[in-house]
Amino acid sequence: MTDLHHGPVRPTAAAKSALRPVALDHVTFEPDSLFAQWQHRNATRTLPHCVDQLEAAGALDNLRLITGEKSGEFRNMWFADSDLHKTLEAAAWHLAGHPDDAGAAAFLDSTAALLAKAQGEDGYLNSYYTVVEPGRRWQDLHRSHELYVAGHLFQAAVAAARAGVASELLAVARRFADLLVERFGAADGPDGLDGHPEVETALVELYRVTGHRPYLDLARRMIDLRGRGLLNDERFGPAYLQDHVPVREADEVAGHAVRQLYLLAGVVDVAVETHDDELLAAVRRLWDDAFGSKTYITGAHGSRHRDEAFGDPYELPADRAYAETCAAIASVQWNWRMLLATGEARYADELERALYNAVAGSTSLDGTRFFYSNPLHLRTGHDGSDEDAPSQRLPWYTCACCPPNLARLVASLHGYTTTTDHDGVQVHLYSAGTIRTEVDGTAVEITTRTDYPWHGRVELTVTASAPLTLSLRVPGWCTSARVSVDGTPVDAEPEDGYLRLRRDWSTGAIVALDLDMPVRVVRPHPRVDAVRGCVALTRGPLVYCVEQNDLPAGVVLEDVRIDPGSAAVTGVPGIPQALTVRGTVEPPATDELYTADAPATDSTPVTFAAIPYFLWGNRTPGPMRVWVPTTG
Amino acid sequence: MTDLHHGPVRPTAAAKSALRPVALDHVTFEPDSLFAQWQHRNATRTLPHCVDQLEAAGALDNLRLITGEKSGEFRNMWFADSDLHKTLEAAAWHLAGHPDDAGAAAFLDSTAALLAKAQGEDGYLNSYYTVVEPGRRWQDLHRSHELYVAGHLFQAAVAAARAGVASELLAVARRFADLLVERFGAADGPDGLDGHPEVETALVELYRVTGHRPYLDLARRMIDLRGRGLLNDERFGPAYLQDHVPVREADEVAGHAVRQLYLLAGVVDVAVETHDDELLAAVRRLWDDAFGSKTYITGAHGSRHRDEAFGDPYELPADRAYAETCAAIASVQWNWRMLLATGEARYADELERALYNAVAGSTSLDGTRFFYSNPLHLRTGHDGSDEDAPSQRLPWYTCACCPPNLARLVASLHGYTTTTDHDGVQVHLYSAGTIRTEVDGTAVEITTRTDYPWHGRVELTVTASAPLTLSLRVPGWCTSARVSVDGTPVDAEPEDGYLRLRRDWSTGAIVALDLDMPVRVVRPHPRVDAVRGCVALTRGPLVYCVEQNDLPAGVVLEDVRIDPGSAAVTGVPGIPQALTVRGTVEPPATDELYTADAPATDSTPVTFAAIPYFLWGNRTPGPMRVWVPTTG
Repeated sequence: MTDLHHGPVRPTAAAKSALRPVALDHVTFEPDSLFAQWQHRNATRTLPHCVDQLEAAGALDNLRLITGEKSGEFRNMWFADSDLHKTLEAAAWHLAGHPDDAGAAAFLDSTAALLAKAQGEDGYLNSYYTVVEPGRRWQDLHRSHELYVAGHLFQAAVAAARAGVASELLAVARRFADLLVERFGAADGPDGLDGHPEVETALVELYRVTGHRPYLDLARRMIDLRGRGLLNDERFGPAYLQDHVPVREADEVAGHAVRQLYLLAGVVDVAVETHDDELLAAVRRLWDDAFGSKTYITGAHGSRHRDEAFGDPYELPADRAYAETCAAIASVQWNWRMLLATGEARYADELERALYNAVAGSTSLDGTRFFYSNPLHLRTGHDGSDEDAPSQRLPWYTCACCPPNLARLVASLHGYTTTTDHDGVQVHLYSAGTIRTEVDGTAVEITTRTDYPWHGRVELTVTASAPLTLSLRVPGWCTSARVSVDGTPVDAEPEDGYLRLRRDWSTGAIVALDLDMPVRVVRPHPRVDAVRGCVALTRGPLVYCVEQNDLPAGVVLEDVRIDPGSAAVTGVPGIPQALTVRGTVEPPATDELYTADAPATDSTPVTFAAIPYFLWGNRTPGPMRVWVPTTG
Repeated sequence: MTDLHHGPVRPTAAAKSALRPVALDHVTFEPDSLFAQWQHRNATRTLPHCVDQLEAAGALDNLRLITGEKSGEFRNMWFADSDLHKTLEAAAWHLAGHPDDAGAAAFLDSTAALLAKAQGEDGYLNSYYTVVEPGRRWQDLHRSHELYVAGHLFQAAVAAARAGVASELLAVARRFADLLVERFGAADGPDGLDGHPEVETALVELYRVTGHRPYLDLARRMIDLRGRGLLNDERFGPAYLQDHVPVREADEVAGHAVRQLYLLAGVVDVAVETHDDELLAAVRRLWDDAFGSKTYITGAHGSRHRDEAFGDPYELPADRAYAETCAAIASVQWNWRMLLATGEARYADELERALYNAVAGSTSLDGTRFFYSNPLHLRTGHDGSDEDAPSQRLPWYTCACCPPNLARLVASLHGYTTTTDHDGVQVHLYSAGTIRTEVDGTAVEITTRTDYPWHGRVELTVTASAPLTLSLRVPGWCTSARVSVDGTPVDAEPEDGYLRLRRDWSTGAIVALDLDMPVRVVRPHPRVDAVRGCVALTRGPLVYCVEQNDLPAGVVLEDVRIDPGSAAVTGVPGIPQALTVRGTVEPPATDELYTADAPATDSTPVTFAAIPYFLWGNRTPGPMRVWVPTTG
């Protein structure tokens, strides 16, 4: 079990990967840090909430129908097993650092036992296709999610194996994976690919844990089979199923956003493990497309509610942003893989953008309510009664993919902060806490003090038993960074997004990094029609928004105009680093929807707060917007 | 058969209706007029095309499965009978004025015979629920469309009856309608209302033709049953089914746009026939909501592809406008009913807006290709392969509701132009042609010369056997209108949107109406974020657009800025009244999607054409936009 103590995504020694993540237990967050608070909330509120909701929704009972522990009807979505598997994965990552959490351990162990008991003789494990439609097994891969569900089982097993818990789960996963290899692994055998990609990355991770090459080969085969018209769904079409173009030829992200992004994460995994530069080049092209014209300023993806899809280039409506939580999580996963593969800072920039905004904003302050869709504008008059676009976070969803997906990401968040290469250590995400790792046998310890993302000061106390390079990420949003070592300014410029300090750390040194963090007034690309004439306020990695709560009574949010230069940090009770902004209220001069008359606007000065987007919707539910029209 | 020779919507003598439409054969369009050209194209191209496509899609064969003339499987949508019924209706309206069209007559007669043969003993007539799911009859009214399909049958029968053709059809319709009354008409009997409203207006029209009161009562009952939670569909929710709120209490248009608008047409019909002022007040409220914040400048409705729905107030994206053709047709139908009920010009204004833009734009120049969704912006880089949002008009659709709906509207278009009241004649839509009608026994003849909508000059030669008032609509877009009689200027101001000329016409008079028709630069309400900073060019009732075809090679449409004051009529070969516009091309200064840097824009002057929106997409397929950002 060479992978023990590692987190998500551990390229093998043979992989063509610029960076390697440090082991999961090499990173600890200081309890007061934002990341630690998120992880604490995740463990104490979100994870138990997910377990309760899965039980209530029937996701566990569906398996008990197979084992005979329950009788009755199958409940919930046909792919609801996957919600359970993601929750198992979350529990496993959590238990890696908190083996004493008896509740989580009991859930993990009992569910692993249930899965083992529910598994078929041949290794098949899927409650819907066992209970409801046994005759359709493998027959409807365009919609069945059978391989998708299997993939989440594999990822849960990988997490358990790396955490050193519930060893039964890996055995269950392997039996199922072996069945997949047997059925779909042969080049001259039947073709197996899922309308919802996910199993690809899971198979590579299972390969990494087990060293069993056929899992990697199957993942690669599944990727190479895409775009050949093997899947068909009249309602949704081939792009929705990610079967519209061979991956190696693609140059546009398209179709269902989560499916596209999960696929690309798997493609990177296969590319680095098989040294397939052509595949990696394809993914780079698709990244350029996604982040060049199809990404929200919050890091969210998916412009269309219909088919949960990417849109045309620059089609980025704020009010109808679909911006599914799972797509933001998938973006974190994809960017992390791109960062490992290439070492390029832009991937860390996009990971951070998605994490602090789209991902963080999807969970309520108390950790038990969630957004599935994450709009950038909730309109005055919005009918928020629909699960599809509610006015506030909901405790659960008919399709409950997002909450447990959040749980597994947050539980393993410390695995996304720090990497090493032959030369040293790279710190990508800053948090107060400790990094204790090693670089080619050289022990390194870094203790960080910071209250990033609220301020840009990061102090790192570094010791290492031999000289090495400490690389500190200078985020793309930061136009001025300074660094000193033991109080002496270092005349270093960021190289490709990192300040690189090579020296002897054997006696220890204090590195002080100052990332200037002024309010930045951000404008959209001129082809983004949806927010023309608007600005977004950002500071550090955080995007801000204006909520009805912070406007004077009677002011309609859509009538507010902002003076872009006026924003300054002042604060709102209970909300850190809120901005105070000046602007005007400009009620429409006419009720006419379209008019040739010049608008005679009555303008009233107004001062109001803007708060971090990720904290919106935690007070009285009401309108909100990220992009605000400017005065004048 | 008192209704003979009348067109769609004929309030009974007892109805509380401000205006009455003149008989269908009282209006004739001059062959060179735009309306006549549309009707000619409709009769010679669209109608035969629909017949061919219906045959190819199986809509006729589905009925032949019942009669035994064919064997095989049911094909197409479960509500495909309705496409056939709409085509029958179109054929009937056409035959009213062209009884010598043997092809149309043969189609109508043979299909009426087929329907009669396929009809059940009890009067039931629905191919899907007869052939495929006989056990589910009346069981799934939230989705079955059984009453919707019945409604279109009734409307076809009404048209046939008024046209004096295929009398068998009315008998078929009545048998089915009697079954509906028997099953759903009793106050203490089962509740019958369809998830897709349409049968309400059809039942009222059938009542108008037959005088059989139970049809009207049933329509009223169906309207009063809405909003009581009788329909349920987990996927779509109650607003989609128009069952979210009682009609009398509603104050917002919501849910599926076509369903909402069809319902409201039926509500007006019931309100005027039953003198129900409360119902009419509800419809007025909903009209104010729809046209105050949820209507495109083209007159289209439906901001969301998902669920084909209305959106929030002011949510009117140009690129993702769903703007279904059927919704625009429904808007014409609804506004016509509102106009008849109230006599208020604003309803005629909105009818005209929808007709000349959203409706007219959905059909290709050759009459055999159609848009289902009518966007106001087709983006550069749009993936137009999807039926849901194609880059060009398609010959037919999986759900083919729109093409035959167009056919029935255009075939009866002369029925939407002219009304009478006790005092005189009202001309609402201008076209070269002749009106020969009577007002309380007074014969009136009006011969019109105009090339409206291309120019605003309308000359009417009027004779009448007794004094009466000629009311000429001054459209809402017209800020300056002049009128003369026999060359002498008349000092009259429009009253509520109409210039009213009361005089003795017995010796004939020439009325010359001049509607100033300059280019109007229209701006959106400031809460319409999607097109902030943009203008639309309009002239008369026509909205204009810019197509890639009219830009210099290499210019990206989204980089074009318009000088609002520069537009002037000059012309493009083959396109009447095209505008020439000056502006700039401003390619983005950076590829960055979001930036805090001030955009340094390289601006190049450019001159290009804008063409009437309804003519777009008839040259090389490519990007198009109605709303264009302005220079400076």
